[in-house]
Amino acid sequence: MKKINVGIIGLGRAGQMHLHNLMTLPEVNIVQLADVFIDKFSDKLNELGFTNLTTDYHDLLNNPEIDTVFVFTSTDTHEQIVTDAAKAGKNIFCEKPLSMNTIESASVNVLKEVKKNGVKLQMGFNRRMDPQFRDIYTQVRNGNIGNPQIVKITSRDPDLLPHDLIQRIGGLLFDFTMHDFDMARYMMNSNISEVYAKGGTLIDPTLKDINDIDTLALVLQFENGAYGLIDNSRKAVYGYDQRVEVFGSKGMLKAENVSQSTVELYNETNKIERKPLPIFVQRYHEAYIAEMKAFISSLLEDKPVVATGEDVIMAQRAAIAAQESMKTGKPVKVNTHFSLA
Amino acid sequence: MKKINVGIIGLGRAGQMHLHNLMTLPEVNIVQLADVFIDKFSDKLNELGFTNLTTDYHDLLNNPEIDTVFVFTSTDTHEQIVTDAAKAGKNIFCEKPLSMNTIESASVNVLKEVKKNGVKLQMGFNRRMDPQFRDIYTQVRNGNIGNPQIVKITSRDPDLLPHDLIQRIGGLLFDFTMHDFDMARYMMNSNISEVYAKGGTLIDPTLKDINDIDTLALVLQFENGAYGLIDNSRKAVYGYDQRVEVFGSKGMLKAENVSQSTVELYNETNKIERKPLPIFVQRYHEAYIAEMKAFISSLLEDKPVVATGEDVIMAQRAAIAAQESMKTGKPVKVNTHFSLA
Amino acid sequence: MKKINVGIIGLGRAGQMHLHNLMTLPEVNIVQLADVFIDKFSDKLNELGFTNLTTDYHDLLNNPEIDTVFVFTSTDTHEQIVTDAAKAGKNIFCEKPLSMNTIESASVNVLKEVKKNGVKLQMGFNRRMDPQFRDIYTQVRNGNIGNPQIVKITSRDPDLLPHDLIQRIGGLLFDFTMHDFDMARYMMNSNISEVYAKGGTLIDPTLKDINDIDTLALVLQFENGAYGLIDNSRKAVYGYDQRVEVFGSKGMLKAENVSQSTVELYNETNKIERKPLPIFVQRYHEAYIAEMKAFISSLLEDKPVVATGEDVIMAQRAAIAAQESMKTGKPVKVNTHFSLA
Amino acid sequence: MKKINVGIIGLGRAGQMHLHNLMTLPEVNIVQLADVFIDKFSDKLNELGFTNLTTDYHDLLNNPEIDTVFVFTSTDTHEQIVTDAAKAGKNIFCEKPLSMNTIESASVNVLKEVKKNGVKLQMGFNRRMDPQFRDIYTQVRNGNIGNPQIVKITSRDPDLLPHDLIQRIGGLLFDFTMHDFDMARYMMNSNISEVYAKGGTLIDPTLKDINDIDTLALVLQFENGAYGLIDNSRKAVYGYDQRVEVFGSKGMLKAENVSQSTVELYNETNKIERKPLPIFVQRYHEAYIAEMKAFISSLLEDKPVVATGEDVIMAQRAAIAAQESMKTGKPVKVNTHFSLA
Repeated sequence: MKKINVGIIGLGRAGQMHLHNLMTLPEVNIVQLADVFIDKFSDKLNELGFTNLTTDYHDLLNNPEIDTVFVFTSTDTHEQIVTDAAKAGKNIFCEKPLSMNTIESASVNVLKEVKKNGVKLQMGFNRRMDPQFRDIYTQVRNGNIGNPQIVKITSRDPDLLPHDLIQRIGGLLFDFTMHDFDMARYMMNSNISEVYAKGGTLIDPTLKDINDIDTLALVLQFENGAYGLIDNSRKAVYGYDQRVEVFGSKGMLKAENVSQSTVELYNETNKIERKPLPIFVQRYHEAYIAEMKAFISSLLEDKPVVATGEDVIMAQRAAIAAQESMKTGKPVKVNTHFSLA
Repeated sequence: MKKINVGIIGLGRAGQMHLHNLMTLPEVNIVQLADVFIDKFSDKLNELGFTNLTTDYHDLLNNPEIDTVFVFTSTDTHEQIVTDAAKAGKNIFCEKPLSMNTIESASVNVLKEVKKNGVKLQMGFNRRMDPQFRDIYTQVRNGNIGNPQIVKITSRDPDLLPHDLIQRIGGLLFDFTMHDFDMARYMMNSNISEVYAKGGTLIDPTLKDINDIDTLALVLQFENGAYGLIDNSRKAVYGYDQRVEVFGSKGMLKAENVSQSTVELYNETNKIERKPLPIFVQRYHEAYIAEMKAFISSLLEDKPVVATGEDVIMAQRAAIAAQESMKTGKPVKVNTHFSLA
Repeated sequence: MKKINVGIIGLGRAGQMHLHNLMTLPEVNIVQLADVFIDKFSDKLNELGFTNLTTDYHDLLNNPEIDTVFVFTSTDTHEQIVTDAAKAGKNIFCEKPLSMNTIESASVNVLKEVKKNGVKLQMGFNRRMDPQFRDIYTQVRNGNIGNPQIVKITSRDPDLLPHDLIQRIGGLLFDFTMHDFDMARYMMNSNISEVYAKGGTLIDPTLKDINDIDTLALVLQFENGAYGLIDNSRKAVYGYDQRVEVFGSKGMLKAENVSQSTVELYNETNKIERKPLPIFVQRYHEAYIAEMKAFISSLLEDKPVVATGEDVIMAQRAAIAAQESMKTGKPVKVNTHFSLA
Repeated sequence: MKKINVGIIGLGRAGQMHLHNLMTLPEVNIVQLADVFIDKFSDKLNELGFTNLTTDYHDLLNNPEIDTVFVFTSTDTHEQIVTDAAKAGKNIFCEKPLSMNTIESASVNVLKEVKKNGVKLQMGFNRRMDPQFRDIYTQVRNGNIGNPQIVKITSRDPDLLPHDLIQRIGGLLFDFTMHDFDMARYMMNSNISEVYAKGGTLIDPTLKDINDIDTLALVLQFENGAYGLIDNSRKAVYGYDQRVEVFGSKGMLKAENVSQSTVELYNETNKIERKPLPIFVQRYHEAYIAEMKAFISSLLEDKPVVATGEDVIMAQRAAIAAQESMKTGKPVKVNTHFSLA
């Protein structure tokens, strides 16, 4: 079996989840792990059999045994680490986005470096690999609903995040809605050309202090003439809510939210089922594994990755436009042209 | 049993459907029927036992035996007939809207006449009485989902209408979306204060010739701070599609579309169910009867009607704003104040 | 329009329900009503417009204007009334069964009289006309699941019946399971050839005093080699529960129970839906109307009825076999041959 | 982390599936693998990192490093291997049943050896650990449906098995229905006291040659007075079908079958969903992992196992009774007493 020799950078909550997923893949040989706070995790990592640990991710980039790095650090470090990894000739999996900066040039510079060094880069748009959404995607491509005309995405988090975390990851639009922009574009196979957004703090008014919102409703126009509707909330008390619907000239495809259990209890008062899954970790468990498998097979078989840097830029542009739209109270055009040349 | 003595004006397709529904209500005594083309229907009506027929609705208004008229004529006649009926002191059930005119004063004049004559007027917002939507409405009012924050309405017709019919009934916004505006406002118990609409002809480009659209996506702002999302299509090949969802601080309520049958066929290739109901006649059958029952009990027990003239005006204002929004490419404010005084 | 001139015998709860349904059918002209306690209902009936009332059903049989009678009296009177009606040359709709007697000859004598007089008789196996079950029936006949191999029926009442009522209507097997025997046979298009039944009083032990049970599980063998499973309970606290499933060589058809509403409430603890419909009146509302329509069209177009006297005899035989099986603790063969000749 | 040092015996299809599942559990240290045909698998196993391979399972029993063995060999070897492993003082996980012999004493002898040597034995009743069924189990125990009165189990395989395989694993009753007997008993928390079974070859008549059936319908009586209904088929063309329902004095719990995807396609002809999961490997993937986790935590925390040897004996007794019932055409009593003393 051909193996991918892997270094992992960032072992916080997300990093550890991905580490466990990567451990189940036989093609992955995990060589070295890096985290600035690696000492906090070293016992746990030793127990899992990992002893080659470092606080400095450059050690991984300098390790000739490693051909591929996975970047699970906080958003503000992506720009630097991905650039360095590209220069070191490593293939890269990185959580979105590529940069905190809402000015696109930072991300573009990263991508230029990736291109120049001829390495592969896959971005963490995990939802693309959710079995339900992937099923919709495939059926849309197969023409099962004809020409797509409307995409509807509902995406709700189960609870408010701490303000300091929000500031590190960039607010609702850049942390959360970003996924929906990508999903909308992915499903419609067309770029977003205009965004109109209404958002506010219907749940936590103090979010205004950090210039964020908790509730969002927006309308998209796609380059191909189709429309999109997205609604977001930071606090769905019933759990994580993730739904996609695509309507077209020959039908509709619809993926409802996923529950903890499908068992139905009928009693004297009601029919009762369990709530949806609590949060992304459970909801996208299969998607997280699938995106890793997809990346590995892109490397082994030299195929295109399922989510590129350009995909992140395009989602980022929509988020920036939505921010602008809320500020001006008007719809905002989105540049649909992209070229690294 | 106290009976309501009824005259029916307009016996086209809608009128005949309502006539059959009214015939099943024991409190309703149908005295006289009017239609300019009554001769076309007279055989059928005789067979049902109705012999007091006229081409002139004034005959009903002059008939002292009749206390209540039902108006099912084409939209362009509502203004005149309702005004005349009010002057004649008859209680009135009328299909929405009150006038073709997109300038509100025409409708207001009708309502002033209704008020002046102290008669009851119920408008045909039948969807308010759909058992599923009514269940959501009741649960929202009971506080089951706390404070409503987002309402989502999907409303799709099964097929394009003839252009001449569209012109008579006022186009997508005034014929179809009007119901959704009312539903949104009804569910949220708050007036619509702003509309942003994107619409186009993704199905039938020749609709542009009559200044109409077939596909619509819009975002609403409510006076109470909540948001709304509506999507419309004139051609859902799978049938009539009518869904409502209300999301709030303590939960979510959701009514999926209604199918012809819930029987599931599992075969070698798929799990297969029947399509949704074909069109409003079947989908809102119970709602049409329920709105009649509600009106009758408003009359018999002197209670408020379930859908007033003001409700129509408010929905009309949203439709006018949506039209303006599409023209200008900007969100449009909606006046939330209303008074006949 | 050709009309059926109808007399109705029996205006208790069931009779009144059917009366209201018959009133909505334009082909039905209700001429006269009979009930031994008609005085109790006369005000209500007058209000509905019925003035030709009698305590003696013979008046209807002697009324030359009436061509068809509907028999909704208690089970113990069916034998006599249907026999008299047949002799009077009236077409007959009668609730099942034909006789209280568990010895078949009583029912056979009734059917001989019907045959001799050349009148039509339809029995009240309303569930055959339930839209869901009818859909399964049609799809089975269309070959959608190939050769049927297993039929499963779940049938549960919402609550215990008074002992005196049970005694009048014949106990669980003869009142309730009888419908399931008929449904099983109807779906499989094959006669029941053997029954093994286990039953007991898991809910109300005092039912033993009147020789009845409240819980039943049984296995059927069909003449064509297929199998059936039926389970019954008198007390499903969540409401009336009626389900049918047919499994075959090319697939499966399944009709789940019907709920009051499909609205879903998601809150902090659960996903909650409303309970199933409370009782047969609501659950089989459409079926009751459909069986009347079917009977009327049998009369008007001289077509076979949807549920015959033979169907009742066959279901009765299965009930008698189940009773015997519980008594002996062994499976009991059922005679599948039937001929009036 | 405390680890369990494991030897695996049997690396056929089932063995390899379990091996992959065990590899994902950090508490499991796989020391040695045995299979009489290990040479066929050695390349694949080497690639997974396993080099300590043997054709003789006694090597594992003699390996002092190993404390626990997993037995995934064919049914006819269970008796010998489990006996040997118990004598060697190893804890044992073994697929059901314990012996091919339909005379119980063989299994009892194995269990006596297990008891004598004070080792833990968990049997492979994986379905007990299916998340849906486990949810029902837990809710029944919590009293959510009061006193259980009826259990219904539908269990259908997607396709016929080769005759030689059937002969090795013991036929429908001993290979397949065995799981349902265990599930029924597990859900009801009561022993099966009587079985009445009807079975035949509705699909493959040549099964008669090897004394097997493909279709089964049966009724159970439980010691506590409750009833059970089971139906089986070897060929559900739509996939693997596994459902459980428990009805009680205060409600009902129901787990429907599991589909490949919940995506709904609505098109011009139908509403279409994907078929159920194809076969046990996918359907019980989580259950297989969960039963391993449960066994490991039984070992690490010295807790009772989730499925004991007694559980297998009890299911085996029901299967033997069902066999006898089909032979005699009568219900057969089941001994509910069990003691190894």
